[in-house]
Amino acid sequence: MDLNIDRNAGTPVIRQLVTHLGEWIHAQHIRPGARMPSIRSLARENGVSLSCVIKAYDQMVASGVLESRHGSGFFVAQQAARAAEPDTDPGDGRWSLFDNASTQLKLGCGWLPDAWRDDTDLGQAIRQVVRSDNHALFNYSSPLGSPHLRLQLQKRLGLIDIHVDPAQIITTQGASQGLDLLVRTLLKPGDLVLVESPGYYNLFNLLKLQGVRTVAVPRTAQGPDIARLEQLLGEHKPSYFFINSMYQNPTGTSLAPSVAYRLLQLATAHDFRLIEDDIYADFQNGPTSRLASLDALDRVIYLASFSKTLSSSLRIGYVVAQPDIIRRLADVKMITGIGCSLLAENVVATLLANGAYRKLIQRLRQRLNKQMASTLRHLDPAHWEVFAEPMGGMFVWAMPRYLTAQRVQQIARQLQIQLSLGSTFLPQGEACDWLRLNVAHTQDHRAQVFFQRVEQESIVAGQ
Amino acid sequence: MDLNIDRNAGTPVIRQLVTHLGEWIHAQHIRPGARMPSIRSLARENGVSLSCVIKAYDQMVASGVLESRHGSGFFVAQQAARAAEPDTDPGDGRWSLFDNASTQLKLGCGWLPDAWRDDTDLGQAIRQVVRSDNHALFNYSSPLGSPHLRLQLQKRLGLIDIHVDPAQIITTQGASQGLDLLVRTLLKPGDLVLVESPGYYNLFNLLKLQGVRTVAVPRTAQGPDIARLEQLLGEHKPSYFFINSMYQNPTGTSLAPSVAYRLLQLATAHDFRLIEDDIYADFQNGPTSRLASLDALDRVIYLASFSKTLSSSLRIGYVVAQPDIIRRLADVKMITGIGCSLLAENVVATLLANGAYRKLIQRLRQRLNKQMASTLRHLDPAHWEVFAEPMGGMFVWAMPRYLTAQRVQQIARQLQIQLSLGSTFLPQGEACDWLRLNVAHTQDHRAQVFFQRVEQESIVAGQ
Repeated sequence: MDLNIDRNAGTPVIRQLVTHLGEWIHAQHIRPGARMPSIRSLARENGVSLSCVIKAYDQMVASGVLESRHGSGFFVAQQAARAAEPDTDPGDGRWSLFDNASTQLKLGCGWLPDAWRDDTDLGQAIRQVVRSDNHALFNYSSPLGSPHLRLQLQKRLGLIDIHVDPAQIITTQGASQGLDLLVRTLLKPGDLVLVESPGYYNLFNLLKLQGVRTVAVPRTAQGPDIARLEQLLGEHKPSYFFINSMYQNPTGTSLAPSVAYRLLQLATAHDFRLIEDDIYADFQNGPTSRLASLDALDRVIYLASFSKTLSSSLRIGYVVAQPDIIRRLADVKMITGIGCSLLAENVVATLLANGAYRKLIQRLRQRLNKQMASTLRHLDPAHWEVFAEPMGGMFVWAMPRYLTAQRVQQIARQLQIQLSLGSTFLPQGEACDWLRLNVAHTQDHRAQVFFQRVEQESIVAGQ
Repeated sequence: MDLNIDRNAGTPVIRQLVTHLGEWIHAQHIRPGARMPSIRSLARENGVSLSCVIKAYDQMVASGVLESRHGSGFFVAQQAARAAEPDTDPGDGRWSLFDNASTQLKLGCGWLPDAWRDDTDLGQAIRQVVRSDNHALFNYSSPLGSPHLRLQLQKRLGLIDIHVDPAQIITTQGASQGLDLLVRTLLKPGDLVLVESPGYYNLFNLLKLQGVRTVAVPRTAQGPDIARLEQLLGEHKPSYFFINSMYQNPTGTSLAPSVAYRLLQLATAHDFRLIEDDIYADFQNGPTSRLASLDALDRVIYLASFSKTLSSSLRIGYVVAQPDIIRRLADVKMITGIGCSLLAENVVATLLANGAYRKLIQRLRQRLNKQMASTLRHLDPAHWEVFAEPMGGMFVWAMPRYLTAQRVQQIARQLQIQLSLGSTFLPQGEACDWLRLNVAHTQDHRAQVFFQRVEQESIVAGQ
């Protein structure tokens, strides 16, 4: 059985084996109890090592798709066909990026490829907490979150000139829950807030869910468009402005110092607060302007997470604010979910304390920088418009000059590439020819072919 | 230094060492850099083994309180005093049970003691997923949750006669997030629902937070008071009724078959739905009446969790309902927090698949049964009123016949016992002399002394 394993794909071989074997069981309606191909034959026919096949089979046993019978091989488990089935998408396509069974190249997704992941440090930290911190393995965390983690966060925040007390830090299940707690605690239906356009699509979803009205401020290469903001502040009285200061999602742009300063002035003059979502903070490459560092958390509420760097699976983020706001957030956090995983919190604390996290983000920055440069080289200015060359991070916001979004989408589909279309990042979801590209995924050979085809067709279309 | 280590306490010696040493550092304002007592002297002066002290010190190094310097011992780390500081309680005492730095005996808490925990199987499952499922270690889960876990849940639900498709199951961060998603998705401010009284305090908090109005149905030993319910249904038009069928929190009572049947009849006649919170399901000891099994999820929405049995730290629960409801919940789940930890989901799936979870709950049931019998023996009917003798689970709802709640509270405080007072479990929080007791914690010698003192004072007061 040839499974079309692709050694140049971003996806590790073992994962490709698991996915393709699962699809094969499902597509062929292989009955429960059927014997799987031998390890030896599968390895030979796909040109992979025996140990890769063994690991793939082990994983499929662990996940209930296969059963191992001592001495006689691997067999399809009861209901295995179901386990291999891809998830239905509850949001009419809205969550298709989160379909883990998909083998498409997610060229615009918001995370790093599996091939970039090294489980050495994270695995070791997990084993250490499991071994030495039995309490964390079994028990609820406290309302503000693990004191050990918050102490480490306090130190880390000090390094980027955000000087706070641990009582000003609350852990959250990723920055997503941080945003949700802020919206639930500080806003009520009908309230009006400012958002960036283009901006983070799930923030738009969240505000809509809570009945909060939004006014969009255009994003420029230097941050929010200050002239437009001043005009909007003449017409509206927003209570909050949600912003990504650094490596903004989706444009990859960062706040210029003068824009940051002017934003804080306007916040004071017009009495609104800034919610600074800094989840790309740890990709930082050089000097930057952070609202929370400038204003010392007077009018700024700061949030960040470990989902983009360390692991999205741990679900650990945090919010930093005045103690009275933190207390209110903690109360809502407990009422609505009784806190974070103490195990996950202490795993992150361990990696912060032993220096492994610092080394991880150094490696990621270097690798992302290299990929950013290589991606920008693919985006020939003759054929692509790039919104602004990002100074770091994962995202480039780009648009083919001569092809429509529909045509680009067709090319991508033929190559098994899933794009992240610009309209997703507009508060009202209007049509848009821009694309969010994640530079960490442009190494994949499908991305290379995609850029070539766009260029070839652009040459024809541009003539 | 004598740390008052108590070998008969429910708390393991290592954890007592960590807690007492942390308190000592904090209370004595030990400066960062100060050398800690040697392992040998600490072991000798406290009558504990060298390996216990070594493990306690290792744990304090991992959590940033101490630093180890090769060959020269253990030293107080920078800012260690802060790490050892107990958390501030954001809810004015509402969350004091969740203070992990407390050494009080939490006699009425909602979880098992550390001394009951065995990390062998859970530790092994975590190591297995870390080793074999790299994807789960790093990535976001899918909207409905890990397909592997949902397949295992489907099998498990089948065993208690809840027959569903995986598309009817969604994972949640504990049952708490399950309740929150249901309230957010199905209810709006001003809606009216039925709750049990006494009942789950955090459900009351949640409904209040969301502006949902509640009408309380008294709980009897057989389930909700049907006569009173019929009367209330003449006056109100509720859309949902939130209920614990089995080992209800806080009374420990379970639904009688005739009450279950009548409840479903009333739900049909008065067009309301039942939300069956079955988080004590896995402590089940014998035949039982489950609404979801009877009604096949027509008018019933079912939720449960692994927090009470396996680990509260994994934050894994689930909701079972009609596919259209599940899709709506999944959408809100993604918008408000981008899902559960895929790592934690697959750890639970592994323990369900390999049979370790089944064995764990068998052991827990036996141990809880023994403790239930022993606790009921302590509650002499001459001095205590017991609401109803539970058939299993963790909770007994009891009230001293001759002592006021204030007096009982004073006795408890003297013994370093934290009680869970009845008023907490009433929707309006009115004064109440009942107590929720957790039978898993009555082994602790402080509980034994507590029961003796209550009995002694009751004899005097009752004369």
